[in-house]
Amino acid sequence: MRIALDAMGSDTCPVPDVAGAVIAAREYGDTIILVGDETRVRAELGKHDTAGLSIEVVHAPDAVTMEDKPSTVGKLKPESSMHVGMNLVRDGGADAFVTAGNTGAALSIATLFTLRRIRGVKRPALSTVITLNGRSIICADVGANADCKPDWMLQFAIMARAYARFAFSIDNPRVALLSNGEEEGKGTDLIRESARLLEAADLNFIGNVEPKDLFKGGVDVVVADGFVGNILIKTMEASTSTLIQVIRGELTADLPSKLGALLARPAFRRVRKAIDPFETGGAPLLGVDGVVIIGHGRSNANAIKNAIRQARTAVQGNLIAAIREGVSSTAEPASEQA
Amino acid sequence: MRIALDAMGSDTCPVPDVAGAVIAAREYGDTIILVGDETRVRAELGKHDTAGLSIEVVHAPDAVTMEDKPSTVGKLKPESSMHVGMNLVRDGGADAFVTAGNTGAALSIATLFTLRRIRGVKRPALSTVITLNGRSIICADVGANADCKPDWMLQFAIMARAYARFAFSIDNPRVALLSNGEEEGKGTDLIRESARLLEAADLNFIGNVEPKDLFKGGVDVVVADGFVGNILIKTMEASTSTLIQVIRGELTADLPSKLGALLARPAFRRVRKAIDPFETGGAPLLGVDGVVIIGHGRSNANAIKNAIRQARTAVQGNLIAAIREGVSSTAEPASEQA
Repeated sequence: MRIALDAMGSDTCPVPDVAGAVIAAREYGDTIILVGDETRVRAELGKHDTAGLSIEVVHAPDAVTMEDKPSTVGKLKPESSMHVGMNLVRDGGADAFVTAGNTGAALSIATLFTLRRIRGVKRPALSTVITLNGRSIICADVGANADCKPDWMLQFAIMARAYARFAFSIDNPRVALLSNGEEEGKGTDLIRESARLLEAADLNFIGNVEPKDLFKGGVDVVVADGFVGNILIKTMEASTSTLIQVIRGELTADLPSKLGALLARPAFRRVRKAIDPFETGGAPLLGVDGVVIIGHGRSNANAIKNAIRQARTAVQGNLIAAIREGVSSTAEPASEQA
Repeated sequence: MRIALDAMGSDTCPVPDVAGAVIAAREYGDTIILVGDETRVRAELGKHDTAGLSIEVVHAPDAVTMEDKPSTVGKLKPESSMHVGMNLVRDGGADAFVTAGNTGAALSIATLFTLRRIRGVKRPALSTVITLNGRSIICADVGANADCKPDWMLQFAIMARAYARFAFSIDNPRVALLSNGEEEGKGTDLIRESARLLEAADLNFIGNVEPKDLFKGGVDVVVADGFVGNILIKTMEASTSTLIQVIRGELTADLPSKLGALLARPAFRRVRKAIDPFETGGAPLLGVDGVVIIGHGRSNANAIKNAIRQARTAVQGNLIAAIREGVSSTAEPASEQA
């Protein structure tokens, strides 16, 4: 398999990006194509032992930054590493593209400039894997689309289900809609109309769930509009990291606590790992015509390696074909004239 | 001060409700009026030492349960403890009403049957106090209104600001709008239009904030539509309680961890207290014409006592007059004919 990696993606690029590529090339035996400023990438690569590994470098003279505006960067930087990497996928030079860069820019470049949408997809969605308490859930959309329509929500469900099938190795993922309660009158108009569509579709739709239901098991895919999905994942991240900060503060406040923390260090390490978003690495942009995995900007080498693993899984699971097939079932019926 | 308490409010009523009333009567010296099934309430009260305390009982033959539908309970149970308690406030027999019961029912009974809206208020809002990392923020709406309009959001800001002024003893609370980022193109249509209104209003509006900004300090009031606000607080609650569960699991997994946890027990107790929603006790229903404090259904006696403290603060701070004055500034200008 050939996986293109944005060497200019992460906040501290190209250091973790190149390091992650080296680990992935060794661990998976795939060809990793580093896309970015060739001089910088080769210099960074020179710091690693790459004997026997299949690593290529493709030059891209420009790079997208976190400051670039998603709406204009596609036009302003046509030779960015994102453009070049996604074009590799489009033209068959790579099976997937992985980036830890600007998510909005990746979405816009993929959708409007290089890969474009899979036929029938109304709006591509950002997905993410939520992991807490040892259970993983795929959530979409987590930020691509703010004001959504019910038929987009249906497609988010179908696309995320396609991903969940092979990411979790389950035949019939349980799909839920994020809402503020089961009770009568709860939810927005969008939620009520989306629930009707999901109910009528060929999906294992288990109904509306509240945030607390996500951590109890029983849900594989949770659908939200991009605004609410984004608030969900950012609130989870902020709450858990703030709580850990509070705990750390208290555990260093006096000697017995410090000693206790020392004894319990392996336990805390396991906790950290259990909730570490970097263990997942990234998640696909659903609905664009090629596998694109978006990782966290703060990715370290391990996170990059894991994002590459997500890309392999998506290619092996034939994500694009599965989405194409799924969304074709939501297409408006052809004209009655036959 | 005379505070009416729904004795039939909490999930395990009337036990914590009555116990909380006794503590509050002793601690604050106020008159607490227990509203509920007189026989049950007096029996429960008999288990406490109430010598010298000013506690009254007002009979209400019916009680709202968590299963009652907010849309119909007002009509179906006109003699519930919520009706009777709110009518006491309306008719001057009490200065405030506190309940740990069904929030939707309280909202509907207050708005449609007893206290009604303060003149000029478009939609009452549920508020809550978010506390994590030692910082408190008032959030509104957290569940009363799902599909909101920008002018309602402006009023939520004004009403929550009125509450924040005396709850936090600050003159000019910093008001923010919950969104998914500062970047261009972020937010929904509702957020963009609400931001324009908040910007133009006589408010200390500091702009849009993401969930992570809420825990950094710098924000006193955060405004959201009731759907998003509800997702926010429920995600916070679910994330932190799940994380604590994960930590507890790991801390009992082996002997050194168990020992460490034992040594650090006082530290963990401080953490629990810092994030305990019961320390706040409750928050007002903003916009109804009388002080109504809603507590958590799972309230213990301490939470009930703290909810009563919130009621005192709201009465002392003259919440209703402050909201009346605030919303009058948002009223459409009188006809040009003068």
